[in-house]
Amino acid sequence: MEEKIKAVIRDVVDFPKKGIIFKDITPILENPILTKEVNEEFKRRVSHLKIDAVMGVESRGFFWGLLLSQLLEVPFIPVRKKGKLPYKTIAYKYDLEYGSAEIEVHIDAIKPGSNILIHDDLLATGGTAIAAAEIIKMQKATVCGFAFLVILDFLNGEQKLKAYSDNIIGLVNY
Amino acid sequence: MEEKIKAVIRDVVDFPKKGIIFKDITPILENPILTKEVNEEFKRRVSHLKIDAVMGVESRGFFWGLLLSQLLEVPFIPVRKKGKLPYKTIAYKYDLEYGSAEIEVHIDAIKPGSNILIHDDLLATGGTAIAAAEIIKMQKATVCGFAFLVILDFLNGEQKLKAYSDNIIGLVNY
Repeated sequence: MEEKIKAVIRDVVDFPKKGIIFKDITPILENPILTKEVNEEFKRRVSHLKIDAVMGVESRGFFWGLLLSQLLEVPFIPVRKKGKLPYKTIAYKYDLEYGSAEIEVHIDAIKPGSNILIHDDLLATGGTAIAAAEIIKMQKATVCGFAFLVILDFLNGEQKLKAYSDNIIGLVNY
Repeated sequence: MEEKIKAVIRDVVDFPKKGIIFKDITPILENPILTKEVNEEFKRRVSHLKIDAVMGVESRGFFWGLLLSQLLEVPFIPVRKKGKLPYKTIAYKYDLEYGSAEIEVHIDAIKPGSNILIHDDLLATGGTAIAAAEIIKMQKATVCGFAFLVILDFLNGEQKLKAYSDNIIGLVNY
């Protein structure tokens, strides 16, 4: 499965800035069968976990975050950038290479005591995934694992996520 | 089905600005069965159309846009805000009440001659849906219809979309 996905992911040179080779996962979405297979692979890889809800990070984390939640028949919790969710929220601010970012979750979206799988399309340095995990902790729920389509091993994000859960799944590693 | 969805949609007063009552559709996502039923209702309502791909508008249009494309077993085409898609794009700029917005689609995502269903969570004045339709026309493809979870009738967006397709579906109208 890893090679099959890698064959479709597109390298875009110098995006979003010079020197970065961006992994473009959108070509997968052009192929509905592969999109489904990716989802089924996620399900297989998380089958040992007790998952009460899947949390997906805006925007690309909405793709398989929601698809997987449907396959597992559990709620989907959208994480959005500051100011996008209309109702009362819990926010978490974190540092980026330059400046900072802030993400939010609706205050009633996370049930206390529930086990939540965090999903995003790609794990780089881990800042956003950690912010999502912190929001889950603030709501007295548990991070039962992380599931990424792509993990960039050379950025060592995985190491930082182990403070929240040992279950860190990546379908494709670079 | 309409009443079932309306019972879950949450009114948020004064969002994103004073005087607006925002229709918050995220509570639907907390209920995986209702989320699936909404998707199946979309499928029923578009069953008379020949659809080669579903286009979904960032970010909330990614939810049922992708779910419906999976149910129909056709490609999903993400429309994003300017500067988010990494590869070469076609862009379309349009006016808003104050200022302007620009959306983009990857240049190879739309197949010439294909029939594309445009999906977003909500139809207001129609600016974004028209921009998506214009991009489809620029790529020599056809808008075979529009499917929205919510249509705000009092803003008359539907009237403007008829220039592109008579098939305008809304699961919920206000």
